[in-house]
Amino acid sequence: MNSDLPKVLHPIAQAPMLEHAMSAGRALEPERIVVVAGHGAEAVRAAVADIDVSAEVVLQDEQLGTGHAVDQAREALAGFDGDAVVLYGDTPFVSGETITRMIEARAKADLVVLGFEAADPGRYGRLVMDGDSLERIVEFKDASETERAITFCNSGLMACASQLMFELIAEIGNDNAAGEYYLTDLVELARAKGLRVTAVACDEAETLGINSRAELAQADALFQSRARAEALENGVTLMAPETVYFAFDTVVGRDAVIEPNVVFGPGVTVESGALIRAFSHLEGCHVSRGAKVGPYARLRPGAELAEDTHIGNFVEIKNAEIAAGAKVNHLSYVGDASVGEATNIGAGTITCNYDGVMKHRTEIGARSFIGSNTLLVAPVRIGDEAMTASGTVVTKNVDDGDLAISRSAQENKPGRARKLMDMLRAKKARKAKGGA
Amino acid sequence: MNSDLPKVLHPIAQAPMLEHAMSAGRALEPERIVVVAGHGAEAVRAAVADIDVSAEVVLQDEQLGTGHAVDQAREALAGFDGDAVVLYGDTPFVSGETITRMIEARAKADLVVLGFEAADPGRYGRLVMDGDSLERIVEFKDASETERAITFCNSGLMACASQLMFELIAEIGNDNAAGEYYLTDLVELARAKGLRVTAVACDEAETLGINSRAELAQADALFQSRARAEALENGVTLMAPETVYFAFDTVVGRDAVIEPNVVFGPGVTVESGALIRAFSHLEGCHVSRGAKVGPYARLRPGAELAEDTHIGNFVEIKNAEIAAGAKVNHLSYVGDASVGEATNIGAGTITCNYDGVMKHRTEIGARSFIGSNTLLVAPVRIGDEAMTASGTVVTKNVDDGDLAISRSAQENKPGRARKLMDMLRAKKARKAKGGA
Amino acid sequence: MNSDLPKVLHPIAQAPMLEHAMSAGRALEPERIVVVAGHGAEAVRAAVADIDVSAEVVLQDEQLGTGHAVDQAREALAGFDGDAVVLYGDTPFVSGETITRMIEARAKADLVVLGFEAADPGRYGRLVMDGDSLERIVEFKDASETERAITFCNSGLMACASQLMFELIAEIGNDNAAGEYYLTDLVELARAKGLRVTAVACDEAETLGINSRAELAQADALFQSRARAEALENGVTLMAPETVYFAFDTVVGRDAVIEPNVVFGPGVTVESGALIRAFSHLEGCHVSRGAKVGPYARLRPGAELAEDTHIGNFVEIKNAEIAAGAKVNHLSYVGDASVGEATNIGAGTITCNYDGVMKHRTEIGARSFIGSNTLLVAPVRIGDEAMTASGTVVTKNVDDGDLAISRSAQENKPGRARKLMDMLRAKKARKAKGGA
Repeated sequence: MNSDLPKVLHPIAQAPMLEHAMSAGRALEPERIVVVAGHGAEAVRAAVADIDVSAEVVLQDEQLGTGHAVDQAREALAGFDGDAVVLYGDTPFVSGETITRMIEARAKADLVVLGFEAADPGRYGRLVMDGDSLERIVEFKDASETERAITFCNSGLMACASQLMFELIAEIGNDNAAGEYYLTDLVELARAKGLRVTAVACDEAETLGINSRAELAQADALFQSRARAEALENGVTLMAPETVYFAFDTVVGRDAVIEPNVVFGPGVTVESGALIRAFSHLEGCHVSRGAKVGPYARLRPGAELAEDTHIGNFVEIKNAEIAAGAKVNHLSYVGDASVGEATNIGAGTITCNYDGVMKHRTEIGARSFIGSNTLLVAPVRIGDEAMTASGTVVTKNVDDGDLAISRSAQENKPGRARKLMDMLRAKKARKAKGGA
Repeated sequence: MNSDLPKVLHPIAQAPMLEHAMSAGRALEPERIVVVAGHGAEAVRAAVADIDVSAEVVLQDEQLGTGHAVDQAREALAGFDGDAVVLYGDTPFVSGETITRMIEARAKADLVVLGFEAADPGRYGRLVMDGDSLERIVEFKDASETERAITFCNSGLMACASQLMFELIAEIGNDNAAGEYYLTDLVELARAKGLRVTAVACDEAETLGINSRAELAQADALFQSRARAEALENGVTLMAPETVYFAFDTVVGRDAVIEPNVVFGPGVTVESGALIRAFSHLEGCHVSRGAKVGPYARLRPGAELAEDTHIGNFVEIKNAEIAAGAKVNHLSYVGDASVGEATNIGAGTITCNYDGVMKHRTEIGARSFIGSNTLLVAPVRIGDEAMTASGTVVTKNVDDGDLAISRSAQENKPGRARKLMDMLRAKKARKAKGGA
Repeated sequence: MNSDLPKVLHPIAQAPMLEHAMSAGRALEPERIVVVAGHGAEAVRAAVADIDVSAEVVLQDEQLGTGHAVDQAREALAGFDGDAVVLYGDTPFVSGETITRMIEARAKADLVVLGFEAADPGRYGRLVMDGDSLERIVEFKDASETERAITFCNSGLMACASQLMFELIAEIGNDNAAGEYYLTDLVELARAKGLRVTAVACDEAETLGINSRAELAQADALFQSRARAEALENGVTLMAPETVYFAFDTVVGRDAVIEPNVVFGPGVTVESGALIRAFSHLEGCHVSRGAKVGPYARLRPGAELAEDTHIGNFVEIKNAEIAAGAKVNHLSYVGDASVGEATNIGAGTITCNYDGVMKHRTEIGARSFIGSNTLLVAPVRIGDEAMTASGTVVTKNVDDGDLAISRSAQENKPGRARKLMDMLRAKKARKAKGGA
């Protein structure tokens, strides 16, 4: 990947690659999740903690092959009686449904390998089947002509009773050119013991592995094109689907309209019938039915927009509840705040929530009118049906129905503008002359 | 479409699908337009009124087939002696030129059907021709091998003398599996009366029908790719054509430059040699020669930019005339206003046009200088060659050549910043301790 | 091109087409550069001066063919003993490596022609080779069947000793249908003198010529797709590569992250590990390691962001140094300024750098806190560890550790908001009645 970031932490649709595989695994409601981390283990540990606190991260100090990697989970799974499924952090597209089928196949087999029909089998390992029975996995370089003609290939994923798997792993040797322990050897070891081995098939696309940034970008593009198709299918209006960028967990309701050039970060829900206009950016927020957002609206984590709210252009909303029918239409920053029903926030309004050390909250009541360019120096509270005059700096609470104003009287100085301009022009001319 | 919105109201290039077909029909300068609405008739009626007030909307209460649908127009066209053309609201790409050719073909035939050479005829109805004469339309399921080999297919569009059409429609039966009245039966009925029936051909792309949101998105993409190609052909510079989103009626002059990521809403005219920078959003506005717009400029309906105006980043212009050479370069909202020639509007200027109940106008003269963060509390007027000091709240008119200022004196409080910061940090530390 | 702008000045990746060819030529470290300009010579002269002041522009008054065009450089290269390479302003993709190979081939030949293997040779001139020797160039219309089967075609580029080239050019005739002087005739003329002529091959894509805006757009797209692939290869994270628009000279470091919808203008360097968020626009700026930019940040020429700076949404930075750890997070304009280490600039801050005639500078020290909506009326200086209160208009310097404030006291007027709203509503109602 040409990166300091461990490969499995590179994001697809704004979630670390690893998280996609872990999400698929959740379909099984697993009792235990063990993540084996090699390079960049500390970064992986931190990321896994963010994704699923119940997951355990174990370290693979030396990289001695896939069999050796899985062996690192031995201790973590000691005494665990259930089935184990081996997934890969860089194979993000395997589906929960596929993993479920692997476990179901365990009813008839001791070891289950996941295979796929390859459009172009190239140098993949071949799965040699005899009916439902997986006879062996043959590497391309060791394969006969007949075997090379096989198109059913090995994905590397396996399912097995956990304790049996570790017993078999203990027998894997490293008598090969690379001196590595290969997990694929489990097939031969299991068959030698007379155990039943089978393979289940999935779509080739599910087994897509990521080995470069170009492949990462392709994987993201694949995710996006699926997410867009799914959104259309679900009744979302996408005016220009190819310009809408979804996160892994974006939820958009039926008859919501998404204009061109919208970017979703993680944690966004947009309800039915909401309108997200062009050039909007949403993260960690909730947009209710009938709300209108953008163009150029930025909703940051904790933005909660109730029904029929309007958030307009060049407006940033962060950690704030905007009640039904309220409007923040122009050039404003509303952070750490609540805005009551049907309240109108004028252009250029700023909640001054940070004093250089701490963040404070602003509370604004219902049906109030905040004049343009009002500064709300938090902590501060504005009541219901209250107003602030344009340009007011609000440092004290304003009660229900009251008007707050802080303003110097306007003075008009006759002829002063013309004089000033003449003076400035003369000064500039002198400067230019001096410089010449 | 998986939508509460009637299919024909889903937009392509920001116009309801229906409007595209209606626009094509306008090529004929029709005396009457009748729209037959089934599902969501009230919404269709409202949309049609927006598109063309002269169009009449009639209701199809029950959906009993295409013949039945057209029959709903019988009363609306009673006594109308001219020709009728049947178009479809979900077939938006038919061209005016094609419809004109259908009417021209009426000179030699009583009934004219629109056909197309299908690349893959699949299950389309086939047009069985004998020279110029259309013998019959045969549905795929009823077609012989020889007929299935025909690639000239039925689009469903027809032209006929209006009164004759309704006479024939009255004879259509519904003795078929679906119990529906099919408009295609007109061909057989006409021929039975010894009338002349013919077909004219159009490009398959014109007959594209929309039956899902995915097809809608494809239709929009098709529209965009044509609009982009046409713009290039007309001498518009598009730095990254695939990132420019046109509306159905966007007009851009020769040697105008459009940077990447620009979205046009309806009703925009950009004159020759104007520059629209990246991330701009334009709707219902007019941009004159030599004007520079963006990046991140939002021009809303009623924005009229004269020659050589500059509208810069994070600026919203609504219902405002900006005279030649005037500049609004940064972070401003100018709405319900006029700005005179060569006037400079400073960063952060806001026209406070809304008092919570009504909108008011701001008028600014020529060669004036509006200082940064000026608030213009409308209704208010600033003269020519006038100035406002930075941060002024203008509530009274400013005459020509005058300077307006409203400002509290700046006080510097020695050492107070350090003390305040220390205090805040101490407070935070105490809080953290209390919380622990 | 359907344009008033000379073709060679149309931009690819934000550099005039011409500049791409000139850049390629720079690989040779040429002693002299002569640009022959036909249409729009004055505009070309101005553009060339911007690109490379050492380049000489000569005029081709009449357009009498490629040989005639090159002949216009005769005087400019009088007395120049070295080699000359003929490039074309509308062939922007030729590489420096290819031109270098042409000059290297001069060791074994007097005249070197650049050819390419054409996938579809169509009507290109064919290069008839005999081993390494170029026998002749045959135009398609004059070619025999056997010659038409040749796929090695003429790009038009040539290398030759400068003085020899002009000697040969003097012998080119115009006895052809168009009455033009063709540079390709040099091959025949050279061979007639017993000189050695050869051809070197390049990739067909390098010889791509631009003859319409559609081809220009394709060339830009080709540039972008290469630039994106190269960035990925170099370890840049591009979440959605196809939405990132690079300029010809953009430099982005390893493990920098570029979110979707980012536009680079000319002159941008982004260091390793910086983050450029969605919808950002950068020109002529430098972003250091660990800096976070956007979304919706606009960095204009002269923006210098030190390590770990944050530039947030709806922020414009122009001609300003932002020191390490400083933050400008919301809705601000910072121009002609310096901001010290770890200083925080509050939302809505504006440097009032323009007085209507001249630009002035603002200097802000380290570890200071600029309150929201502060106006800094330049020239002005704020010290280290200083503060400004929200809404302050700073017209006088603020010393280290001091707090500046300019603020009118907030007055709360009991019940006034309700009364005012009632009054406005009544007025509106009267108006509506009056209008009816």
